[in-house]
Amino acid sequence: MPDRFDRVRAALADCAARTEAELASLYPEDPDRDISKVYEIEKYSLMAGGKRIRPFLVTGFCAAFGKDRDAAALRLAAAVEMMHTFSLIHDDLPCMDDDDLRRGRPTSHRMFGEAPALLGGDSLSIRAFETVMSAPMSAEERCRAASALADAAGSRGMIGGQMKDMRGETERLDFASLLKLHSLKTGRMIMLSAYLGCVAAGLADGDPRTVAAGEYASKLGLAFQVTDDILDAVGDEKTLGKSVGGDAGHGKTTFLTYMSPEEAGRYAAKLTEEAKEALAPYPECGLMCDLADLLAVRKK
Amino acid sequence: MPDRFDRVRAALADCAARTEAELASLYPEDPDRDISKVYEIEKYSLMAGGKRIRPFLVTGFCAAFGKDRDAAALRLAAAVEMMHTFSLIHDDLPCMDDDDLRRGRPTSHRMFGEAPALLGGDSLSIRAFETVMSAPMSAEERCRAASALADAAGSRGMIGGQMKDMRGETERLDFASLLKLHSLKTGRMIMLSAYLGCVAAGLADGDPRTVAAGEYASKLGLAFQVTDDILDAVGDEKTLGKSVGGDAGHGKTTFLTYMSPEEAGRYAAKLTEEAKEALAPYPECGLMCDLADLLAVRKK
Repeated sequence: MPDRFDRVRAALADCAARTEAELASLYPEDPDRDISKVYEIEKYSLMAGGKRIRPFLVTGFCAAFGKDRDAAALRLAAAVEMMHTFSLIHDDLPCMDDDDLRRGRPTSHRMFGEAPALLGGDSLSIRAFETVMSAPMSAEERCRAASALADAAGSRGMIGGQMKDMRGETERLDFASLLKLHSLKTGRMIMLSAYLGCVAAGLADGDPRTVAAGEYASKLGLAFQVTDDILDAVGDEKTLGKSVGGDAGHGKTTFLTYMSPEEAGRYAAKLTEEAKEALAPYPECGLMCDLADLLAVRKK
Repeated sequence: MPDRFDRVRAALADCAARTEAELASLYPEDPDRDISKVYEIEKYSLMAGGKRIRPFLVTGFCAAFGKDRDAAALRLAAAVEMMHTFSLIHDDLPCMDDDDLRRGRPTSHRMFGEAPALLGGDSLSIRAFETVMSAPMSAEERCRAASALADAAGSRGMIGGQMKDMRGETERLDFASLLKLHSLKTGRMIMLSAYLGCVAAGLADGDPRTVAAGEYASKLGLAFQVTDDILDAVGDEKTLGKSVGGDAGHGKTTFLTYMSPEEAGRYAAKLTEEAKEALAPYPECGLMCDLADLLAVRKK
């Protein structure tokens, strides 16, 4: 049955396929068995599927604002996915979340052993920069992209967020800290994705479109996390493919520490509206607005 | 008692002090306690001392070939030291070498816990690229530096070497594999250091001085590793500050698997001569030749 999300669903699927082809192209054959082993470990996690929302933001904003730079956008999308996947591999390690399964498959360290998974993650993080450097853009643009990637992924971004998240597992975070946790841990990489789409499109940092894309991504990222917390607490286990109530059961601070599921639902809806409002002056961003709506009604 | 190494020893000490000041300057105060915690973990290992040979190669070649670019060289030296330190932190982790001490102090995971040490290492690797991006050089030069850093540190360099090293702990590597292990695990980062000095000096990749610096560093790196294996097997425990015979005892493949300590000593001396020969046309590189000689006669 066709619905209003058909277009964005098709665009997401298309982007995922193209991102995966791009990623695969970045791993040539290597005669060295140990180097090939690192490649194998990286690809196992890179190719595990997922919504590929970050690549969609990169390529979507590039297509909206500068259609002829798709090759650059796709390369940057691959880089973002590498950095994201590195964080998943390390997050799953025994000393972190100690997870056995991700997306229904054994986690990297269950598949390859702990030390190889550690090294595979390390390599992915480095390869993300290598990949940015190979993007068909000017040196100035590649530097802007690499600086933004480092800032979003490092201690003032994703890594800092993981450090805060660890503290939030044993100690109650106040609401401001909870907001900052998500802004760092997932928000910055989502904002980065929108930003890289603008860089690939040839926009300057101060261009109103770059600013609007950042505002959109900031709201979208937070809405995504609020919805995640709702689904984790009251979602359907069969649809989610995992057990619910885990975070609360472990005493972890989430949005439901501070609001009811209904309040959280209204909060996510408000953030989604704000995300779309940021793009209101730019009708060429219709797909990105559809994405925001789709993520707000998702069941997994 | 003055000897022929006084000049290079003083230059090494000066470079170490300036590198440490540069590193310290790259960690501003941050009001966020979790971000500050990541900084603290990074700095604990970064500031643990060491010979700072890699920074010396960066600043030394820059000084020899392009004196007025010292600020750029020092920034790149800091980046190399970050990437090197990241590898030490992860190497020490329980799933890797499981070391309790490094340079006489508790290793990062003994000091801060395993997950924080993992994240601190991750952050250092990312910060190395951030640091390259902040070097006072052209965008083109920063891209050359970042690409070279990724290549030397990633799966076709240091990380690939660590994967090979793990295999060499349980299985006997043939001599060609042993050479490749060291070329990847330590050689590539040492060659990178020399290369970055040339980039900071404004030299092109094809400049004969860049090529000579690479040839020198390749021989120097291998000589360093051969000497390491000799010291590990027959060095003086008190001078080294660690027990000897460890590698052989663990069945690990080393140069002494294939030659006697005396043969290995002659091999290291030959490599040292070759390193210096590569720089023979460039009398401005006298300090780098002294360094090669100094490293060949070191007792720790």
